[in-house]
Amino acid sequence: MESKLPHVGTSIFSKMTALANQHGALNLSQGFPEFDAPERLKLRLTQHVQAGMNQYAPSPGAPALQQQIALLAERKYGAQIDAAAQVTVTAGATEALFVAIQTLVRPGDEVIVFDPAYDSYAPAIELAGGRSVHIALRSPDYRIDWQQVAAAVTTKTRAIIINTPHNPSAKTLKAADMAALQALVVEYDLYVISDEVYEHITFDAQPHLSALRDPVLAARAMVVASFGKTFHCTGWKLGYCIAPEALTSEFRKIHQYVTFSCFTPAQLALADMLNEEPEHVDALADFYQHKRDLLIEALQGSRFTILPSEGSYFLLLDYSAISSLDDVGFCDYLVEAIGVAAIPLSVFYAHGSSDKVIRLCFAKEDNTLLEAAKRLCQL
Amino acid sequence: MESKLPHVGTSIFSKMTALANQHGALNLSQGFPEFDAPERLKLRLTQHVQAGMNQYAPSPGAPALQQQIALLAERKYGAQIDAAAQVTVTAGATEALFVAIQTLVRPGDEVIVFDPAYDSYAPAIELAGGRSVHIALRSPDYRIDWQQVAAAVTTKTRAIIINTPHNPSAKTLKAADMAALQALVVEYDLYVISDEVYEHITFDAQPHLSALRDPVLAARAMVVASFGKTFHCTGWKLGYCIAPEALTSEFRKIHQYVTFSCFTPAQLALADMLNEEPEHVDALADFYQHKRDLLIEALQGSRFTILPSEGSYFLLLDYSAISSLDDVGFCDYLVEAIGVAAIPLSVFYAHGSSDKVIRLCFAKEDNTLLEAAKRLCQL
Ligand SMILES: CSCCC(=O)C(=O)O
Ligand SMILES: CSCCC(=O)C(=O)O
Repeated sequence: MESKLPHVGTSIFSKMTALANQHGALNLSQGFPEFDAPERLKLRLTQHVQAGMNQYAPSPGAPALQQQIALLAERKYGAQIDAAAQVTVTAGATEALFVAIQTLVRPGDEVIVFDPAYDSYAPAIELAGGRSVHIALRSPDYRIDWQQVAAAVTTKTRAIIINTPHNPSAKTLKAADMAALQALVVEYDLYVISDEVYEHITFDAQPHLSALRDPVLAARAMVVASFGKTFHCTGWKLGYCIAPEALTSEFRKIHQYVTFSCFTPAQLALADMLNEEPEHVDALADFYQHKRDLLIEALQGSRFTILPSEGSYFLLLDYSAISSLDDVGFCDYLVEAIGVAAIPLSVFYAHGSSDKVIRLCFAKEDNTLLEAAKRLCQL
Repeated sequence: MESKLPHVGTSIFSKMTALANQHGALNLSQGFPEFDAPERLKLRLTQHVQAGMNQYAPSPGAPALQQQIALLAERKYGAQIDAAAQVTVTAGATEALFVAIQTLVRPGDEVIVFDPAYDSYAPAIELAGGRSVHIALRSPDYRIDWQQVAAAVTTKTRAIIINTPHNPSAKTLKAADMAALQALVVEYDLYVISDEVYEHITFDAQPHLSALRDPVLAARAMVVASFGKTFHCTGWKLGYCIAPEALTSEFRKIHQYVTFSCFTPAQLALADMLNEEPEHVDALADFYQHKRDLLIEALQGSRFTILPSEGSYFLLLDYSAISSLDDVGFCDYLVEAIGVAAIPLSVFYAHGSSDKVIRLCFAKEDNTLLEAAKRLCQL
């Protein structure tokens, strides 16, 4: 049969993890933690399962969790969120992104996407009948030229997808970026999908500049977040979308036919966790900054050029001093030759990239990071 | 903002459950069990969570679960299923249906749907840019006239959605239906989406006629199933799709961008359950037949006409001897006047229905069924 997504294959994350497993490599490719979810969270989940909370949650989410999400957004971003009207719990940030795109994008609409871009944006836009318009950001600084963005806006432009802290570049948007974005979306009457799955992982004491901090932006934004990243439980597939009431109402119409609702006992456990151990969220940035610094320190002797990591749990390495292979070839080589799995950056570019850059995930045990660095230093 | 689904509101299931809760009514509306998931299943889930199986499963599903699903299909339907190539685990049957529709339906395509139809089919088709063509089946027998179906096929027809045992009518397709379907889809080169979420709940010793039993049909079918219905854990949101390899490959491209993967520890626990306690599945029909019979018996004194329930956990009642209200009004009346929540049938018809029929869910404790029947007998 003909394909709805002819140029899409298996995601790079699935591919590299499979390759890592096959070669028994240290897997610093797909973004998931090597360590486990917090004990309290696992305990609460177990308790809700045993207590029989195993039937459908309300489609928008368990009210207790919606409430905790709203409180967190208020505490961290000073946002006033109506939990019942604005928060929808989803099957991971992936579902939130997919449904947000389905909500906004009509056939013929254009959506501006910054490359390197998370791999789901463009296919989701395509399935909605829209067209993704790609603005390529380049190593090493991946800076957005907002004049270039303005020049890419057409009468068909419907939305802009931003992502901060950014995967894979590990850059964060700054106040000037958010101001430029705000001016742009107001001027051209655009929506924003703000992918903030690494919201709690920003380094060197920078605050996370959520779209929820700016009421003008928030009025046009669908903000996507992830419990998997925050609570080390990527396999639980829980995330959420915060949006203005009118957008949320449209979002929920679609969500109810995409997944209807999410794993009930985990929703209740996450609500407990946010309520009982709020310090987990606040400690996350330091926790990962230690890992980032450990990895950077251990790579000092290498021939890689280390790019700054401002947030997320990723670190980019430029290998142009080491190899003339393209990045896909270099990643294949790394798995086979030294048993380290990484992600090539070019796959995140719609129109390719010849930058010699790979992404490492440092959500790993310290020993894993040290061993990976040791192997990388041999090149 | 304008709506992508202008004629869609909150699903009838969410509405009636909320109304039932508000009135403290016996909730026989939304289809979920009042009893809990099996102890073994809950225990295994707990163990996998505690053992740290909390990161991403492979996008197509945990291999152990794919394997058990294939074995079950072989045991029950004599189907030869390649677990790795044909089975994809999804966030409930809802996601499986949504993704199957996204996989098959291109803008302009038509999909034949039998009304009364599960509420997600038509919006999912619409979001894919297709058009649902509705063939209305009528109380009390809800029989499909296959000549009428053939007459509804056009050059744009892409697929037919069937559902057996059928929700909400509680009818099953018979051998003659499956033969007629097979002839039709071969003649017109159509695909089939076969919603079989109640596959293990067929009464009076009839076998379930899965599309997987017929290799000719199976070669064009995406078969959707649900663990929530089978293992009394609707809140776990796990289901799956079995399809030929080429269709599965396209299905997975989309699934990876809709949810990517599903709750890992529950996948592992369901694999254990299928392996360690296969008799659960085999006992399900008798378990629910007892409940059906109990409810029917308890309703004998009532003025309702009881329609035959051949499968699923639903029973239809014709109330034309009791009230001249339309079915939506009658369901509102039932909640308020006697504290019993039911589902009106007309909402499952694209073009409405004046049949005076409501649906009761009998996946409830015996006492709940008896009390509901007592109240219904007062009318
Ligand atoms: C859904 S698998 C991808 C995980 C991830 O966010 C990443 O590796 O970038
Ligand atoms: C996803 S909520 C609907 C549950 C159900 O299958 C029904 O009540 O028909």
